[in-house]
Amino acid sequence: MIKNITNVTGIKCWGAHTGIKSLRRDLAIIYSEVPASAAAVFTQNEVVAAPVTLSKKHIKDGLIQAIVINSGNANAATGKQGMDGAEAMAKTMATELGIAEEMVLVASTGVIGVRFPTEEIVKGIKKNVTKLSSKSQAGSFAANAILTTDTFAKEGFIEFDVDGYQVNMGGIAKGSGMIHPNMATMLAFIVTDAAISSELLQKTVKQTVDKTFNMITVDGDTSTNDMVAVLANGKAGNPKLESENDKDFEAFRTNLEEMMIHLAKQIVSDGEGASKFVEYEIVNAPNEVYARTMIRTISNSSLVKAALYGRDPNWGRIICAAGNAGLAFDYEKIDLYMGSDENIIPVLEKGVPAEFNRNFMKKLLRESHIKIKLDLHNGQASACGWGTDLTTDYVLFNSVYTT
Amino acid sequence: MIKNITNVTGIKCWGAHTGIKSLRRDLAIIYSEVPASAAAVFTQNEVVAAPVTLSKKHIKDGLIQAIVINSGNANAATGKQGMDGAEAMAKTMATELGIAEEMVLVASTGVIGVRFPTEEIVKGIKKNVTKLSSKSQAGSFAANAILTTDTFAKEGFIEFDVDGYQVNMGGIAKGSGMIHPNMATMLAFIVTDAAISSELLQKTVKQTVDKTFNMITVDGDTSTNDMVAVLANGKAGNPKLESENDKDFEAFRTNLEEMMIHLAKQIVSDGEGASKFVEYEIVNAPNEVYARTMIRTISNSSLVKAALYGRDPNWGRIICAAGNAGLAFDYEKIDLYMGSDENIIPVLEKGVPAEFNRNFMKKLLRESHIKIKLDLHNGQASACGWGTDLTTDYVLFNSVYTT
Repeated sequence: MIKNITNVTGIKCWGAHTGIKSLRRDLAIIYSEVPASAAAVFTQNEVVAAPVTLSKKHIKDGLIQAIVINSGNANAATGKQGMDGAEAMAKTMATELGIAEEMVLVASTGVIGVRFPTEEIVKGIKKNVTKLSSKSQAGSFAANAILTTDTFAKEGFIEFDVDGYQVNMGGIAKGSGMIHPNMATMLAFIVTDAAISSELLQKTVKQTVDKTFNMITVDGDTSTNDMVAVLANGKAGNPKLESENDKDFEAFRTNLEEMMIHLAKQIVSDGEGASKFVEYEIVNAPNEVYARTMIRTISNSSLVKAALYGRDPNWGRIICAAGNAGLAFDYEKIDLYMGSDENIIPVLEKGVPAEFNRNFMKKLLRESHIKIKLDLHNGQASACGWGTDLTTDYVLFNSVYTT
Repeated sequence: MIKNITNVTGIKCWGAHTGIKSLRRDLAIIYSEVPASAAAVFTQNEVVAAPVTLSKKHIKDGLIQAIVINSGNANAATGKQGMDGAEAMAKTMATELGIAEEMVLVASTGVIGVRFPTEEIVKGIKKNVTKLSSKSQAGSFAANAILTTDTFAKEGFIEFDVDGYQVNMGGIAKGSGMIHPNMATMLAFIVTDAAISSELLQKTVKQTVDKTFNMITVDGDTSTNDMVAVLANGKAGNPKLESENDKDFEAFRTNLEEMMIHLAKQIVSDGEGASKFVEYEIVNAPNEVYARTMIRTISNSSLVKAALYGRDPNWGRIICAAGNAGLAFDYEKIDLYMGSDENIIPVLEKGVPAEFNRNFMKKLLRESHIKIKLDLHNGQASACGWGTDLTTDYVLFNSVYTT
């Protein structure tokens, strides 16, 4: 049996159909037997959905015990009616579970600007809380219930050791499917039984999201509903991690990073209309923020993305996009490599076009997993990022009149 | 006869074929009988073509008497050989015209990373300087010689009055055609017989470019070769404009702005693979920079652009893109209008979806000229911008394996 979030000690969940969507599951609930240290990163978009506003408030004290997520309606641009709906979701969960309202995190994804179906969701929560389960199938139901136009559920599970104690970590996510009339929402929920303080968890989650979820792109746009939340309930029994210098904090950090990269890559792989998964790496940069900014500029360039769709080793567009990042660099020091996941070859050496076998390169770029590596020879920092190509299918998907 | 840059007093030009391109004209030369006050704005890309580096040096003193432009080779990523080539272009022009090298502006557009054909161009300059002419046809030859994958020549001419003197102003431009292996280059050259100091001209050109050429987008990427230059030779005889408070400086400024908007709109109209010309307007914003930043974020959003291709009045994507601009705004104050050039109707009123006739809206969005207007109700500033939709043709054009 494949392990998932239900294999995290003290975690129960469920996924059900309440009627917001016509057929598929649209309500996920996750519950921790004990209050968990909790940390989250929310959308940077200026327009924020009601559940984001509410969840920010509830997570302030660093403790959460339950998460309720609906799909099919984003509860964004819904005014007071929407805020009342988000509050009703938290309140119903709290009442049914016998916990405080402030212990509940609320998330939504789906169409925006459509009246929020509070009654149906409240009824659905009441009906399904009793079904909370630690059976593997329950985890799968939850992972499926948060999807919108995603073509597959995104899940992950890792076990690792902290100070001699076995720690379990599971996660679910949904990706960048476009939904009428609207936008890509990224949601990710990670639960672990590690014991860690809220403060250290918040700091670690923020840093790790910057290196993982914030380094993926399908559209370049963020949504009103984006949310990445991590709950750590301490059930593994390890001495509580309180500082970055604690024994095996690094094990926790690297495993959290691995989980986030795993979920982030699945989101990119499921990017609507994309035909290629593109991995970017920048090495020998002045610092990490510099490297990440440059990767984001390149991976968001429509010209670079269209060239990749056409299997064109178009180094000119890549260098030009790098030049648009607003960062100083010495063009005559740059080496650029392109190729497949397994084989990358130089296309530019110290700023001069390299001689390479064009037929072999064409073959490499025909793969569905492409790699692009830029060596700036200007420092020791590096960063990775993940994106897609830009296809005619992407345009068709996102142009269809659906409203 | 349609007037063009040759109708500016003291201006001669020519456009010819030297052999960089197989058939079309690839060399343009513009000459002013007397040294002209000159101002230019160059690409912000970190990677800069050789002619840009050279021209920045030559224009420093604010005086230019000739411009030489080649198309077909961008002279970018060409190292010392390229810099020698750019210098040879300036030197040949100077020798043939009997002026100082520093009085020559050099520009290139075309493929990058390909050896610069200095000899052919030098030979071409020598052969064609004698043909400099003030006949209308010469202006048309010049306008055509700077094109790459543009489908039409971009020209403009205006006459206006400064302090009782008739002033003429003409301009040529090339747009955002993608060229193998590479990138969109925007070039624009405006000549006028107005008398204006170099300092005032530089200040005015910078401000006006920010409101015009910098407000258009096809790809969102800038190139290594972008250049907008303005020459004012004083032949109109008006008392020299030295200060923004001078009589009729405002007439000069508004006409320069009108010329730049005219050329900029032509560039957008010729955006490769675009099916729609989209005009954005933001009103009642806190300040102009704010309004321009928000327009640029919206007009560059792939999601917004794809929705327009699909004639989808997708206000969610527009608001979401606005929310990505990194600017604070009050969503509940916003009015959003969409429609055609002639008829825009509200789709969002004070943040609430407006009731509108969907069939009528569909009809409006079927037009090739679309308008989107955002009223922030948060200040008095406004701005305009121009962009395209994102089409399957765009992706095909830019994905074709051409290297």
